Amino acid sequence: MLEPDVTVGVTLTGALTPAGLGISALIPLIKAGFIDWIISTGANFYHDTHFGIGLSMHEGNAQTSDIVLRDEQVVRIYDIFFDYSVLLDTDEFFRRLIEGPEFQRPMSTAEFHYLAGRYVLERERKLGLKNKSLLAAAHKYAVPLYTSSPGDSSIGMNVAAKSLQGNKLAFDPSLDVNETAAIVLAAKRGLIHGRNPTVREGAALKPGRSAIFILGGGSPKNFALQTEPQIQEVLGIDERGHDYFLQITDARPDTGGLSGATPGEAVSWGKVDPDRLPDAVVCYLDSTVALPIIAAYALTRHKPRPPKRLYERRGEFMELLLAEYQKSHRR
Amino acid sequence: MLEPDVTVGVTLTGALTPAGLGISALIPLIKAGFIDWIISTGANFYHDTHFGIGLSMHEGNAQTSDIVLRDEQVVRIYDIFFDYSVLLDTDEFFRRLIEGPEFQRPMSTAEFHYLAGRYVLERERKLGLKNKSLLAAAHKYAVPLYTSSPGDSSIGMNVAAKSLQGNKLAFDPSLDVNETAAIVLAAKRGLIHGRNPTVREGAALKPGRSAIFILGGGSPKNFALQTEPQIQEVLGIDERGHDYFLQITDARPDTGGLSGATPGEAVSWGKVDPDRLPDAVVCYLDSTVALPIIAAYALTRHKPRPPKRLYERRGEFMELLLAEYQKSHRR
Amino acid sequence: MLEPDVTVGVTLTGALTPAGLGISALIPLIKAGFIDWIISTGANFYHDTHFGIGLSMHEGNAQTSDIVLRDEQVVRIYDIFFDYSVLLDTDEFFRRLIEGPEFQRPMSTAEFHYLAGRYVLERERKLGLKNKSLLAAAHKYAVPLYTSSPGDSSIGMNVAAKSLQGNKLAFDPSLDVNETAAIVLAAKRGLIHGRNPTVREGAALKPGRSAIFILGGGSPKNFALQTEPQIQEVLGIDERGHDYFLQITDARPDTGGLSGATPGEAVSWGKVDPDRLPDAVVCYLDSTVALPIIAAYALTRHKPRPPKRLYERRGEFMELLLAEYQKSHRR
Amino acid sequence: MLEPDVTVGVTLTGALTPAGLGISALIPLIKAGFIDWIISTGANFYHDTHFGIGLSMHEGNAQTSDIVLRDEQVVRIYDIFFDYSVLLDTDEFFRRLIEGPEFQRPMSTAEFHYLAGRYVLERERKLGLKNKSLLAAAHKYAVPLYTSSPGDSSIGMNVAAKSLQGNKLAFDPSLDVNETAAIVLAAKRGLIHGRNPTVREGAALKPGRSAIFILGGGSPKNFALQTEPQIQEVLGIDERGHDYFLQITDARPDTGGLSGATPGEAVSWGKVDPDRLPDAVVCYLDSTVALPIIAAYALTRHKPRPPKRLYERRGEFMELLLAEYQKSHRR
Repeated sequence: MLEPDVTVGVTLTGALTPAGLGISALIPLIKAGFIDWIISTGANFYHDTHFGIGLSMHEGNAQTSDIVLRDEQVVRIYDIFFDYSVLLDTDEFFRRLIEGPEFQRPMSTAEFHYLAGRYVLERERKLGLKNKSLLAAAHKYAVPLYTSSPGDSSIGMNVAAKSLQGNKLAFDPSLDVNETAAIVLAAKRGLIHGRNPTVREGAALKPGRSAIFILGGGSPKNFALQTEPQIQEVLGIDERGHDYFLQITDARPDTGGLSGATPGEAVSWGKVDPDRLPDAVVCYLDSTVALPIIAAYALTRHKPRPPKRLYERRGEFMELLLAEYQKSHRR
Repeated sequence: MLEPDVTVGVTLTGALTPAGLGISALIPLIKAGFIDWIISTGANFYHDTHFGIGLSMHEGNAQTSDIVLRDEQVVRIYDIFFDYSVLLDTDEFFRRLIEGPEFQRPMSTAEFHYLAGRYVLERERKLGLKNKSLLAAAHKYAVPLYTSSPGDSSIGMNVAAKSLQGNKLAFDPSLDVNETAAIVLAAKRGLIHGRNPTVREGAALKPGRSAIFILGGGSPKNFALQTEPQIQEVLGIDERGHDYFLQITDARPDTGGLSGATPGEAVSWGKVDPDRLPDAVVCYLDSTVALPIIAAYALTRHKPRPPKRLYERRGEFMELLLAEYQKSHRR
Repeated sequence: MLEPDVTVGVTLTGALTPAGLGISALIPLIKAGFIDWIISTGANFYHDTHFGIGLSMHEGNAQTSDIVLRDEQVVRIYDIFFDYSVLLDTDEFFRRLIEGPEFQRPMSTAEFHYLAGRYVLERERKLGLKNKSLLAAAHKYAVPLYTSSPGDSSIGMNVAAKSLQGNKLAFDPSLDVNETAAIVLAAKRGLIHGRNPTVREGAALKPGRSAIFILGGGSPKNFALQTEPQIQEVLGIDERGHDYFLQITDARPDTGGLSGATPGEAVSWGKVDPDRLPDAVVCYLDSTVALPIIAAYALTRHKPRPPKRLYERRGEFMELLLAEYQKSHRR
Repeated sequence: MLEPDVTVGVTLTGALTPAGLGISALIPLIKAGFIDWIISTGANFYHDTHFGIGLSMHEGNAQTSDIVLRDEQVVRIYDIFFDYSVLLDTDEFFRRLIEGPEFQRPMSTAEFHYLAGRYVLERERKLGLKNKSLLAAAHKYAVPLYTSSPGDSSIGMNVAAKSLQGNKLAFDPSLDVNETAAIVLAAKRGLIHGRNPTVREGAALKPGRSAIFILGGGSPKNFALQTEPQIQEVLGIDERGHDYFLQITDARPDTGGLSGATPGEAVSWGKVDPDRLPDAVVCYLDSTVALPIIAAYALTRHKPRPPKRLYERRGEFMELLLAEYQKSHRR
């Protein structure tokens, strides 16, 4: 799954960044070139920002009375505690940021996170911090960060509040839908990986592969997988499905929800290539336990890969998607 | 929770409409006036549409080989089977619909689902069907339907595809964030419930209450609950939190994710009124089992309530939100 | 599964009797002739006895501080509270009882529970109670009650304590292993059900069927299912496996434990007849929710069956087992 | 928890030995002196024996058709496959063994496993194997192995079968109940740990501590914890509860069963010392993941402890229990 021709998309749900896994696992994986694009809840990006702008979170006891915590202005994410002012300061950071002129328009969430990442990176540097924020690291390595639910998190809440005052920033989910499908198509067509240097010159491409590594489940899981039905079912482009499906979750198939849906079920939708089903893995485990193990394994057993810097190549991928869509449409 | 002064928001995740629970439980609850607004995954609205436009889904065996299903063009949602053409036909239905002139602009998802609901309702009537679609019923009863992840589902995928051809429809998540906060504020301020007929004349209002009924978890759960932090933390308006928190889920608190976060944790964020915590209930159960039981209980033990028709009053609620925001901002 | 030729064994784990399900569900099912034999944890029989001897248990709040409860001498089973004296009084009841002369020997747990049930029944009557105790009801209807872990529960603890004083009561697990296998063999050979009145005269028997209804999992599940390997693998008798497998549990197969092992896995052991696998059902649900639903269904939709009174026929079944074992052994 | 004055009891449920965790984790922990006594399902001891007598188990695919497996005489434990002959050969091994004269009487399961362990150890040596069997290792290090459900497993099944032919071996659960309580009492009274060399000379003992490490849940969990109520509630001896409670499980408290019952609930029963509750840990994780991590941690970060060889001191512990019981009884 970490061969050079595999493009790896990672989905994040659950309190991963609040638990420090951005710093201890995701940023190192980005620096090693093992994560090419990300879909996450907004909450993981919002709480990541605390670390980058010098705020702190603490380990607490999940049994503490929440009524006492509320009185004391302490906010809780299971066993992680932090001051209410951490929220207010981070809100303020985002509200200032989106007043900037480059934010006065509709954009994809990848564009927003990339632009915001620059400010987090700057703040990090100013504070003498290093490698504290996923947003900052993703900016540096040009890893596009998407969220499937752009209004759902304090980032989206602050964007909405500013819009009440006339701010022009708006997320356009359609851009995200098409961009993520374009990344997957580009991966499969061989446009992405380094062994195909002659792409633009029209030489035949050796096809590449697409991997989805799902931490948790939820809307990001579906958003990552639906790239294939977007290509096949909706845009009518000929494709076979993702090549790797690796999920860490506590959601079981029997409840019928998408979070626990098996790679097999994904095959029936065209989301996963039927020929690759035997290699698909679902690991029923808390991702805060599994991620450090997998990160340690990848970082110690695999040579780093050159970063693919997909953010910078989005235009190229969209061109490919449009070209194939038009071709299919004409038929 | 079903007293007249309580405004009830319901969140839907998991395969509820594919399992027929739209028809057997949610539509009857809407008709009885027990559901005032809804936040759902897009998938529940998309698969609901199949029933409204005369397509069918079937009970299958979850152990069937998905490779065989893919070959036979059968799509699977756990133990629900349907023909691939059901997807193609529903995609076509949505693509045609959003070509209409009333869709050529950015809008909230509530507006989109309301407009789309009219077409599903028409199709239902044309086909001699009745009460088959949640979208249609919500249109009829003016129940606003939100989704927190507008790009994440076949609806969002088709909207994105059309945008490649120049269609102007775009979802604006900020509208959803503010509208849902406005509904909750209006409920709490007593603007919504029937006993306050003199609202607009400026008479003092008897405060009302807000209930959140969570089926599953995921992004819709957070989106429903974040209405209170949007009011308090982000907009700076004085408020106490939701009054009722009733969740049916298999997600446990110990995994640290929001899906399993307790009403206690919600208190620490200001999402739930600390005084109402003792009444909050989390029921660890498959919602396909719990919902029919709760629906049967509500429908047989409680008198129907007059529908609140919140969709038609969104403007009024947004005025309230803006007025209170400006007041708080001036301080 | 409730046809006359099906012998139904039920396994109980989890706090079913403390939650009142003995009274509301299991006793009515016994009276209707729907439960023929039972394997349970000792705890369910011990806590059942409280109700039969006039002690009471209360609904509490699972969040209460256990340190306070301990100080106040209140004992907790999740959200069920009771006085420490309830334990002491029930201990005293069992210690007195096993001083009786009929208890001074090794015996099967079925024999012990049957003998003890008579005393609980007497106490019930003396106190003017009715249908409060599963032990009493099982005595009346001659339903044999087994436990697979005879030392594990306050009953076993009191038996052990008395043995320190020279009491001769001892549980012999081998008797339970063979008796339960004999019941299943008798069911399959057609010896049990009412349509075979001429059994002892040597007429050919119409074979019967065996059903296992598993509430929870744990050691009782394995003990019920291992009856078939005991017959086939260990005693060498020709048999095919149980005919019905119905489990209500929250244990999932992926953890690898027996509690969540599927009926399919049971087929690979000879525990379940491969031809009956399509009818096997596992329902992932809290059994305190599922049992009342299933009991209500069975009691309202099925005519009662004449009680099979298996306890009284154990000798006959053991004769059959021995005869078939000797026959197989000679080969 | 690994200080010299702590006596560590470990409980095993789930398919630990079939998954090879006896060899990779439990035997090394025994050799390092970190496990002092064990309560397990019989299945873990039975399947452990395969490795010791030279039989093999294989990794398989859990999705394989069980009907095919049954036809091919392959037996499945989730994703572990083995030939039906492995069962038959192991059955034969145990049946031969219990024909020996030293087995012709009622005994505790610890005695049985110790006696059987010698034969497994011999077979291991004869086959040139080493450290393959938990039973053999426990024999060598005199770690007593209990099972709370002696009839529930193929070992119990073979014992029961032999009893049909007149074999005199019988398990006496009361011996197990009292022996395990005696171990805990001896640990708490300071009789066990090495710093109290003058015990038998009557010098004042420095009290010791008792730890329970629970892998899974089920009957072994309760059996380990009930040692304290056996001491306090049933025998009337003054005691405070276990000092350490460390559980790895996927069972949640909300289902109400004992498997998921919290250390807090255990405090309300006197099973855990209320003062030690803050140190109690429940880790919601598959134990096949957690055990290797914990074993690696213990073995690399802690110096080995001299084995306590509790099996050889059972008589001494029973004397203590009886003495304190009689003292309490006289009051």
